Amino acid sequence: MDTENKVYKAALLVIGNEILSGRTQDKNINHIAVKLSEKGIVFAEVRIVPDVKDKVIDAVNALRSDYDYVFTTGGIGPTHDDITAECIALAFDTRLEKNKDAYAILEKHYGIAEFSPARQKMAMIPFGASLIENPVSAAPGFNIGNVYVMAGVPRIMQAMLDFVLDGLQGGAIILSRTVSCDLPESKIALDLEGVQSNYDNVEIGSYPFFQNGKVGVSLVLRSSDELSLLRAQRDVSEMVARIQKENM
Amino acid sequence: MDTENKVYKAALLVIGNEILSGRTQDKNINHIAVKLSEKGIVFAEVRIVPDVKDKVIDAVNALRSDYDYVFTTGGIGPTHDDITAECIALAFDTRLEKNKDAYAILEKHYGIAEFSPARQKMAMIPFGASLIENPVSAAPGFNIGNVYVMAGVPRIMQAMLDFVLDGLQGGAIILSRTVSCDLPESKIALDLEGVQSNYDNVEIGSYPFFQNGKVGVSLVLRSSDELSLLRAQRDVSEMVARIQKENM
Repeated sequence: MDTENKVYKAALLVIGNEILSGRTQDKNINHIAVKLSEKGIVFAEVRIVPDVKDKVIDAVNALRSDYDYVFTTGGIGPTHDDITAECIALAFDTRLEKNKDAYAILEKHYGIAEFSPARQKMAMIPFGASLIENPVSAAPGFNIGNVYVMAGVPRIMQAMLDFVLDGLQGGAIILSRTVSCDLPESKIALDLEGVQSNYDNVEIGSYPFFQNGKVGVSLVLRSSDELSLLRAQRDVSEMVARIQKENM
Repeated sequence: MDTENKVYKAALLVIGNEILSGRTQDKNINHIAVKLSEKGIVFAEVRIVPDVKDKVIDAVNALRSDYDYVFTTGGIGPTHDDITAECIALAFDTRLEKNKDAYAILEKHYGIAEFSPARQKMAMIPFGASLIENPVSAAPGFNIGNVYVMAGVPRIMQAMLDFVLDGLQGGAIILSRTVSCDLPESKIALDLEGVQSNYDNVEIGSYPFFQNGKVGVSLVLRSSDELSLLRAQRDVSEMVARIQKENM
């Protein structure tokens, strides 16, 4: 069947002045990368843009036409700098509406007396969107088309992502194996290229590192085909052992 | 003078399968954000793309036409997955050449006997580029047009960035002040918008957090004008004190 081999690709749009200003170290990208990988969805691109309407709208429109799924984080709270819902509505050429379900969730969470206009703002959702549950602080995210709009606070984002991924189609899971050694990258480059050329369906990445003042390299093999992966891993391990012997 | 008020904007392109696969937690974005801020350069966008030629070329061309400076990290080593130099040459419609200075630096570093073809690959630099020093492991980065190509390994990237920023023009330094409190964001949203509307030249961001099971919010004020910044900070502090009193 065709659908079995379909590769699903996703992109992430981080709407985050606080990341670009250097105030905050991003914690969401890596979490999303790991979760998508577990689901068999290829994480194909990330963009980080400031809280500027045109930038958000342009990025959403570029990404949603290029990828199967687009996730956004940040900018769905009650304050003046929370512009994501408005931008998504503009990107989809639709309008914000008071979402009855979101309104009910928020009214219940805060209580009628405390459900202020600022809090009511969080029930303004693009027309036609469906809600993404927020078990942490009630205010929901939403899904419209292939775009999934989530909070930026890691704990809330993580809960929303689990909710979203439960309902998404993924493809083959990418398996990975790592071979690390204390050789410099340049000593193995030529032979590694030879191994890579024998395996069309295994992607071999080479990542140099420094540890305790010595150089080394991690060779990361990734494939959805386990047999090819194990064969390539064997070839890489043998290659490393041979080059280490030559350099003793 | 006109140049005094010029705002310099920069973008970063991370060429990094290892970030997108979830294997590695990025450490470069935050470092670059902090350094650019200190230099008075606005960090306007980040893109993370995989080691795929078309993706790298398209992103470089989009970013270099939109921003004053473009930094790239990753993909300049000796292995088969290091495609950045080739992609940059293609983006600039030029060719790779054996850069004499890079060749001399690398030959001296490795010694003639150990200067293998894989290592010589790192001297292949786009025609017309100038080199960026690498005091850690010799293999240089390079600059062509408004694009600055750096290594991905944090220690090397940091040294290269210092070298690059020494020679770049920056604008006014953005100063920042933070007011944190244990109020939920939605309690201050309306009044905060009022303060924001009084200060055109101060950008006020609102960042909710969870700490020890309680919600709170950090209000971050940023401006290149110190007097406006201090006035806005005073207004925000007074606003917080008043709302706290109302909620006791």
